[in-house]
Amino acid sequence: MPNNKTALVISAHAADFVWRCGGAIAKHQQLGYDVTVVCLSFGERGESARLWKQEGMTLEKVKSERRREAENAAKALELHDIQFLDLGDYPLRVDDDAKFKIVDIIRAVQPDFMMSHSKYDQYNTDHMYTTEVALEARMIAQAWGHNPGQKVLGAPQLYLFEPHQTEQMGWKPDVFLDITEVWDKKLAAIHCMEGQQHLWDYYTNVAENRANHFRRNSGGQSGGRPAKYAEGFQTIFPSCVDVL
Amino acid sequence: MPNNKTALVISAHAADFVWRCGGAIAKHQQLGYDVTVVCLSFGERGESARLWKQEGMTLEKVKSERRREAENAAKALELHDIQFLDLGDYPLRVDDDAKFKIVDIIRAVQPDFMMSHSKYDQYNTDHMYTTEVALEARMIAQAWGHNPGQKVLGAPQLYLFEPHQTEQMGWKPDVFLDITEVWDKKLAAIHCMEGQQHLWDYYTNVAENRANHFRRNSGGQSGGRPAKYAEGFQTIFPSCVDVL
Amino acid sequence: MPNNKTALVISAHAADFVWRCGGAIAKHQQLGYDVTVVCLSFGERGESARLWKQEGMTLEKVKSERRREAENAAKALELHDIQFLDLGDYPLRVDDDAKFKIVDIIRAVQPDFMMSHSKYDQYNTDHMYTTEVALEARMIAQAWGHNPGQKVLGAPQLYLFEPHQTEQMGWKPDVFLDITEVWDKKLAAIHCMEGQQHLWDYYTNVAENRANHFRRNSGGQSGGRPAKYAEGFQTIFPSCVDVL
Amino acid sequence: MPNNKTALVISAHAADFVWRCGGAIAKHQQLGYDVTVVCLSFGERGESARLWKQEGMTLEKVKSERRREAENAAKALELHDIQFLDLGDYPLRVDDDAKFKIVDIIRAVQPDFMMSHSKYDQYNTDHMYTTEVALEARMIAQAWGHNPGQKVLGAPQLYLFEPHQTEQMGWKPDVFLDITEVWDKKLAAIHCMEGQQHLWDYYTNVAENRANHFRRNSGGQSGGRPAKYAEGFQTIFPSCVDVL
Amino acid sequence: MPNNKTALVISAHAADFVWRCGGAIAKHQQLGYDVTVVCLSFGERGESARLWKQEGMTLEKVKSERRREAENAAKALELHDIQFLDLGDYPLRVDDDAKFKIVDIIRAVQPDFMMSHSKYDQYNTDHMYTTEVALEARMIAQAWGHNPGQKVLGAPQLYLFEPHQTEQMGWKPDVFLDITEVWDKKLAAIHCMEGQQHLWDYYTNVAENRANHFRRNSGGQSGGRPAKYAEGFQTIFPSCVDVL
Amino acid sequence: MPNNKTALVISAHAADFVWRCGGAIAKHQQLGYDVTVVCLSFGERGESARLWKQEGMTLEKVKSERRREAENAAKALELHDIQFLDLGDYPLRVDDDAKFKIVDIIRAVQPDFMMSHSKYDQYNTDHMYTTEVALEARMIAQAWGHNPGQKVLGAPQLYLFEPHQTEQMGWKPDVFLDITEVWDKKLAAIHCMEGQQHLWDYYTNVAENRANHFRRNSGGQSGGRPAKYAEGFQTIFPSCVDVL
Repeated sequence: MPNNKTALVISAHAADFVWRCGGAIAKHQQLGYDVTVVCLSFGERGESARLWKQEGMTLEKVKSERRREAENAAKALELHDIQFLDLGDYPLRVDDDAKFKIVDIIRAVQPDFMMSHSKYDQYNTDHMYTTEVALEARMIAQAWGHNPGQKVLGAPQLYLFEPHQTEQMGWKPDVFLDITEVWDKKLAAIHCMEGQQHLWDYYTNVAENRANHFRRNSGGQSGGRPAKYAEGFQTIFPSCVDVL
Repeated sequence: MPNNKTALVISAHAADFVWRCGGAIAKHQQLGYDVTVVCLSFGERGESARLWKQEGMTLEKVKSERRREAENAAKALELHDIQFLDLGDYPLRVDDDAKFKIVDIIRAVQPDFMMSHSKYDQYNTDHMYTTEVALEARMIAQAWGHNPGQKVLGAPQLYLFEPHQTEQMGWKPDVFLDITEVWDKKLAAIHCMEGQQHLWDYYTNVAENRANHFRRNSGGQSGGRPAKYAEGFQTIFPSCVDVL
Repeated sequence: MPNNKTALVISAHAADFVWRCGGAIAKHQQLGYDVTVVCLSFGERGESARLWKQEGMTLEKVKSERRREAENAAKALELHDIQFLDLGDYPLRVDDDAKFKIVDIIRAVQPDFMMSHSKYDQYNTDHMYTTEVALEARMIAQAWGHNPGQKVLGAPQLYLFEPHQTEQMGWKPDVFLDITEVWDKKLAAIHCMEGQQHLWDYYTNVAENRANHFRRNSGGQSGGRPAKYAEGFQTIFPSCVDVL
Repeated sequence: MPNNKTALVISAHAADFVWRCGGAIAKHQQLGYDVTVVCLSFGERGESARLWKQEGMTLEKVKSERRREAENAAKALELHDIQFLDLGDYPLRVDDDAKFKIVDIIRAVQPDFMMSHSKYDQYNTDHMYTTEVALEARMIAQAWGHNPGQKVLGAPQLYLFEPHQTEQMGWKPDVFLDITEVWDKKLAAIHCMEGQQHLWDYYTNVAENRANHFRRNSGGQSGGRPAKYAEGFQTIFPSCVDVL
Repeated sequence: MPNNKTALVISAHAADFVWRCGGAIAKHQQLGYDVTVVCLSFGERGESARLWKQEGMTLEKVKSERRREAENAAKALELHDIQFLDLGDYPLRVDDDAKFKIVDIIRAVQPDFMMSHSKYDQYNTDHMYTTEVALEARMIAQAWGHNPGQKVLGAPQLYLFEPHQTEQMGWKPDVFLDITEVWDKKLAAIHCMEGQQHLWDYYTNVAENRANHFRRNSGGQSGGRPAKYAEGFQTIFPSCVDVL
Repeated sequence: MPNNKTALVISAHAADFVWRCGGAIAKHQQLGYDVTVVCLSFGERGESARLWKQEGMTLEKVKSERRREAENAAKALELHDIQFLDLGDYPLRVDDDAKFKIVDIIRAVQPDFMMSHSKYDQYNTDHMYTTEVALEARMIAQAWGHNPGQKVLGAPQLYLFEPHQTEQMGWKPDVFLDITEVWDKKLAAIHCMEGQQHLWDYYTNVAENRANHFRRNSGGQSGGRPAKYAEGFQTIFPSCVDVL
């Protein structure tokens, strides 16, 4: 279906897409979008503490385990296209070859919108580096002179999804998405992240409280859509509309 | 038609609504909205230099002339509801009576969205004061205990329209509205502002360049809606959506 | 005990102190501090929607009901000094008499620290106005020439407690307080707020997730204090220390 | 001399102009400017701790003492026009009468530049309030309809002079003025402030270190003007030039 | 003429210097400055869409065409020194060799002021990267130990010229330059940019509206220099002056 | 003494640790901490102008001289562990090998707190680059999968020490440390920096004025700790406490 709407998520580590935009993925898949998730690394060094505490663990085992978890989560979200670039983490390093591979993916997907991390993250420099890469790759994908003849990219929004400890990063959501009807799928995806059980309740709380923000901003105490779970996003490009 | 969509513009001086959101007014009127504009003052002292340079000018004459211009502009925009609170300018002063009158208007209109000035304006303190008043009145209109029994306000967006010298005020648009099809009306309204001819070309330029931003953000060089005139707005409340 | 440590909370409406710093109050009471809470209004007009939806409600009944709730919450927190200035809400108005009364309270309490709202709040202008008042009253209380002979105030920290929708207000916590051992008291106080049941779970989620931040910032995955409930605060004055 | 260049300093309390722009005053007087300083209050309640610690002190005695000090400082700076509006301090209150008096002064002086406090000051709300007043009065003085027939004000820069604890207030200097040749006068003026001896060395240090900034920004280690004392200022309006 | 004043513009792509500071270049050339423009790339991949849409286009042809256009524009501005470093675009990459070449140019020119792009640009990461490079090269050029014996750089201002969509980049001009008398030259240079005709009117509008800002900030409605075309710049180093 | 408290300072150039946190080092050494200072470079090219002005100077001589000065300063501060990575300056370059060496040091030290430069520095890009490196190395040191089996890092604060021209860098101190009792040591260390005598008085002034801030924020005119010398620091991670 070449006319399908599409979306592209660029995730520094294998699990980020689950906590931060699993609901958006499931909802848009359900709406008929083809969503692609690119995991630049598995989070094998820096986000797999539970695995490393096990006897005899190796880097390959961790990566394979993290991949399995991410693939399971993708299934739970009914996400059919997840790609692993295996670029290493802590620190993540994206050389020009890897960057052009990301550009290729962007052009192949031709996303209606993109998603990535917050602009700043003093706790996790991989995260902010991923956003830098996403912006640069988006720009290259728009260039008529990059692989001339290919279809260039339009101007999709880049949504910055929710970081951990939002206020420390100066992240400010300006869009809330109602994910009530796909919450079961997101929760199932969360439960695939066996190595990070300490975050299951955390991101359930986040979803409940973002729904409170949804209700308050869509009508306040005099009504408001009764969303029960929501996700927040920060846009970095303005929107273009016909009606306010 | 009680079910009509409505909008409310709170304008510090009589002409502000023309330059800053005349296109949005005309477009939404055309879309079937009932738009209300409230002018807190006529801009009689501070924004009528051309009139004051005429022999024998009085405050009443200036106010009456400014009112005439604003009413003509309203007609050009096919705006049917414009109200003048005559609270004085340079400085504008809104006491509690005036504030409650604004609350009454908000509740009567029940706007789907509101508009007012930028948060900061070191050139024109009336402008930033108007935004403070708009926020406070919006809050009071939401209170169940203010004139109990009246229909309380929901949670309409407050769009901050474009100030003069945007960067000095730290104003950043995140929504561009295509006003190409109502540009003739906006231009006609602009031409009603006889006392401020030095701004006619200025705001034509603004509209043309905001359309460039519209095109660039809606598809860039690979397409993009061919808007020829646009207006920019800054939101201060997040939006709540079902699809990104 | 004249040598007791003391703290002063300035709350725009009767319930704010519960959601935003109930844990800090209970914990410091338990530590032997004498905490004073000043409620500038009852939130009778703007934060009592549930009551106003009842038949035959009057302003006095709402105020009395809100007072009762706040006093019950105070008891639950083992807070012995709660004062109601009854200055009205939506909008709150603090004239010079009221301001000097607040100064009198500050001087009487001589707080080791103070607490109030965030600097900015586009949803609730009473909140940011309260912080302006708190800063001005703190300054007057420090003046040797205000009621000469009285003991002037030192330089207590003003902690800004957590607003609703933190990111919208630009509020950024730089101190997390472990309230695990007094959580039962805070939860009991929350349950006294019968008119705002929609917020009970919300602020439980907040407390749980702030504890996650506490753990992460006090040692991360390699340890970290196992706090289960926490509150966050933003300081606006630097601290003075002997050891980092 | 109607063609003289002029400058206007609006100072919240009697001593502020000495510490914060005494060098600029002396230098511009020496250059032939007519500088006017308006002290909105004497700082009698809040900035006269040393006096209030004396036996039998009264408000009038403090004011008279502070006035004497300020007049002496003015003499030391060879400043001939200092005006005291006696509006009270901690808190300073400027009603409309007082505001229009300030407008009258601005129009009489027709300053080539103005000076006042920083935009924000959490320690001293009188300071930031003075800047609000200065901006509003500047705007009114520009209005053709305010006292029609009077000469309206042009568009003088408003320089924000250095607050105490610059970083806390978010104050950022973008202009450094070399005051080396008038330093003796500024120091003499500083020594007139008998009630605030704890600040003499402080502002000497400031002047020395701002001179370091002058040297570094005017040529660095490869040269740079050898200024020994300087003052820093923040502009809030852009400048208009013919050569960069 | 070794004593001539000089200026240096560092431009990411071949055309940037025309739109963003063509007036400043022409004006300073006319004032007797020797201006040097360094184009790090030709914008061959990312800013030549019109060319790439032609049959049989190659990278070399695009670069040669872009070079021709830029050289023509330089002539129109009476700019005699334009250098092309041909470092590639989308993405631009400056390795240490290239960086030291830029340092060599800075030291050879010994500019009285420098110019480059805005600090942030989410649309065009080449732009913000160029500013990073400019700051680093400026610093190296100031180092006595870099190529000892060469004349080190002083402390020239770095003016950030106007980006496209200023507010999105957080760019705020604090200097406006009147370019009325060289406007014909800038317009002629603009017309050399045959591949970007969609921007001709855009930057004419910008120049007209910046002139409005010039007029308003140099005297407002009571006078003000009647500039008809202007350019805006943001400084990032403070200035050092003898008179305000 | 494995149980000793420890601290780690990452300094771009050999002298930075003296001016910016010499007091903190001496004080914590005196309190029994083991402080480690890592100098990434000697500042041989960019911060040794006085040496380069001498006849016959070579890079090796400069480095050896700068090393001698830094070691002498360390002795004056009673600092026993200073390490020189000799990575070059103007520009400083940290490749992955060097980065992992820094990670090794962090893990070996297991600091209770870390220190480095301000986030932004347009005058000195080496400084802000060092802070980026410090954040990335801190993150890698926390990763269980980096050199598995080693003791991972907890979550130490990163204090940003005082840059030159604080306001230009947007640096804002939120902690002041009383260094009165170790001032003699810091002054002695300062005097070891023979090549930068122009800064001796500058940083003495800074220490005196920061002490004024200490006094004002620890009690103001009604008391306040009588600190005579202090240093300021900006935290970038929140703190976790049991009492406010």
